[in-house]
Amino acid sequence: MSSWNVAVLGVTGAVGQEFLGLLEERKFPVGVLKPLASAKSAGSKIRFAGREIAIEEAREDSFQGIDLVLSSAGGSVSKKLAAHAVRAGALVVDNTSAFRMDPEVPLVVPEINPEDIARHKGIIANPNCSTIIMLVPVSPLRQLAKIRRIVVSTYQSASGAGAKAMRELENQSREILEGKAPTRQVFPHQIAFNLFSHNSAVDPETGFCEEETKMINETAKIFHEPVSVFPTCVRVPVMRAHSESIWVEFEQEVSLEAVRKVFEKAPGLKLLDDRQKNHFPMPIEASGKDDILVGRLRRDPSNPKALSLFVSGDQLRKGAALNAVQIAEIALQKRPAAKGSSAL
Amino acid sequence: MSSWNVAVLGVTGAVGQEFLGLLEERKFPVGVLKPLASAKSAGSKIRFAGREIAIEEAREDSFQGIDLVLSSAGGSVSKKLAAHAVRAGALVVDNTSAFRMDPEVPLVVPEINPEDIARHKGIIANPNCSTIIMLVPVSPLRQLAKIRRIVVSTYQSASGAGAKAMRELENQSREILEGKAPTRQVFPHQIAFNLFSHNSAVDPETGFCEEETKMINETAKIFHEPVSVFPTCVRVPVMRAHSESIWVEFEQEVSLEAVRKVFEKAPGLKLLDDRQKNHFPMPIEASGKDDILVGRLRRDPSNPKALSLFVSGDQLRKGAALNAVQIAEIALQKRPAAKGSSAL
Repeated sequence: MSSWNVAVLGVTGAVGQEFLGLLEERKFPVGVLKPLASAKSAGSKIRFAGREIAIEEAREDSFQGIDLVLSSAGGSVSKKLAAHAVRAGALVVDNTSAFRMDPEVPLVVPEINPEDIARHKGIIANPNCSTIIMLVPVSPLRQLAKIRRIVVSTYQSASGAGAKAMRELENQSREILEGKAPTRQVFPHQIAFNLFSHNSAVDPETGFCEEETKMINETAKIFHEPVSVFPTCVRVPVMRAHSESIWVEFEQEVSLEAVRKVFEKAPGLKLLDDRQKNHFPMPIEASGKDDILVGRLRRDPSNPKALSLFVSGDQLRKGAALNAVQIAEIALQKRPAAKGSSAL
Repeated sequence: MSSWNVAVLGVTGAVGQEFLGLLEERKFPVGVLKPLASAKSAGSKIRFAGREIAIEEAREDSFQGIDLVLSSAGGSVSKKLAAHAVRAGALVVDNTSAFRMDPEVPLVVPEINPEDIARHKGIIANPNCSTIIMLVPVSPLRQLAKIRRIVVSTYQSASGAGAKAMRELENQSREILEGKAPTRQVFPHQIAFNLFSHNSAVDPETGFCEEETKMINETAKIFHEPVSVFPTCVRVPVMRAHSESIWVEFEQEVSLEAVRKVFEKAPGLKLLDDRQKNHFPMPIEASGKDDILVGRLRRDPSNPKALSLFVSGDQLRKGAALNAVQIAEIALQKRPAAKGSSAL
């Protein structure tokens, strides 16, 4: 059986760790695994497929013999290293924002626009986590009617800001329960028992933060058409799944029965809409799962063309690592197993 | 100086405790204070104005000599006792949902419809916390243009479910940090490091929960006109302030400059909209404050008639006890200081 040599760039981060787990779990045909990180982690070991492998420093010459780079190393590192990886013949699936809006780079959610994968020139971008978690449930509704407008408010977990942010939520919670002042290092504001407007830079002119702008621009690129999206991004004291309250207005009336039927068949989704038990999508139930949970389906009584959804999805899996691995799986089907079996 | 005899019904609850603090802090002219609760708390003591006062069991005959009842004892208790209090000559300001939609009972936010207080027949209802926290910022915008539609997603604190729910958030957080399974008693789902659709009963036909229906119906009653409100109510692991992400569409274009001017003058609000420092309303900064924080003012780029706000307000204060005390202050100005100085 053919196999591919895989470099995981940013292997010590929360998404990097998730890459390793997913490659094993999905029996991805890994030949050689090359864990890459910054110089300060070089020499530390990671475990993969029952073996210990030493982390190497990510450098321009790290990609000889590599078929696939799964990258989640921060935008500037990706920007610097991706071209070298491509020149060495690797496919780069990049989880940072570095290439997402580059017209030469496909931006892909496999459930929505897998056909865009074919036109890559070495780099495929993974969308922002909030974009993916919104679009996997919203996209299949386009079968029913054209979307006129989306108003979305997010409930974003600490994991979106990385492993350190998850520890900060834990540490601050402990400090507060012990009556101590919470220590801030990662987030600009206290995250434990609090929430705040998303911690990305805010445009002084429009008031939109970068996370919101990503949701707007990436939706248009993935859908191949402009869509009116009005997002409000909020960080909440939850560990690793994002939730979103989504109101969608269509060009025509859409029945909830039709929406339910679409959701029951749509890939990557699980309908959880139990009104009697008041059981709807929650981050603790979405955590560790591949599917995005969708529920709280309601018609807008004052607008027959509008309805609402509530979704929860694992930010580290479908919001990041899983989507990237799914992209790689499709892309590599179309590619000969090149260097996979040779030693590096 | 005239004074009034005040009974606090449900004095052991989170809102009851807040009533006591506010009466002191606002130098409310209390003659006799009568703390009332269920039989199981009778005999326990509360502290008020430097004295210890024994809690009495709330009964039908508890209201002789009382001028004002501040009630937050649960809908069924209020329903049972309010008529007796009114018959005894007291004004009842009721914080439960028992009388809110009764056409004979005014439903009042003092910043919005203080004129409705005058038509009371002994009972004045305090709106739901989420309604108050939405309407104090939204109402003054009606000076600028007629509102066509509101889409609102809430981030509601544990305090909305009472003192026991706040302890549950604390206890579950501690249990999870210690690696134990979280104990559930008050909420149907884990609240620590999680969030869930509001824990009020869900209408099996429409999918709206009671909290959402309250926001819709109470808005129409307070504004004296129908308004299209589409709420999604969510409980988050925050202690005592509710936040709301509000998208408002008007009949005409409204400029953000005009909105800012309105907010700078509007009572009960504090504008907190610092784009440069990414400093916007947060529950920890709204907690313990009288004013509702409002910020994240943004135009909707795809809809010139729409804009958004993000608000945080103390659920126990303006969302409950403070609003009720403010109603009482206005109502009692118009009423002779009756029994206040006589002993009970």
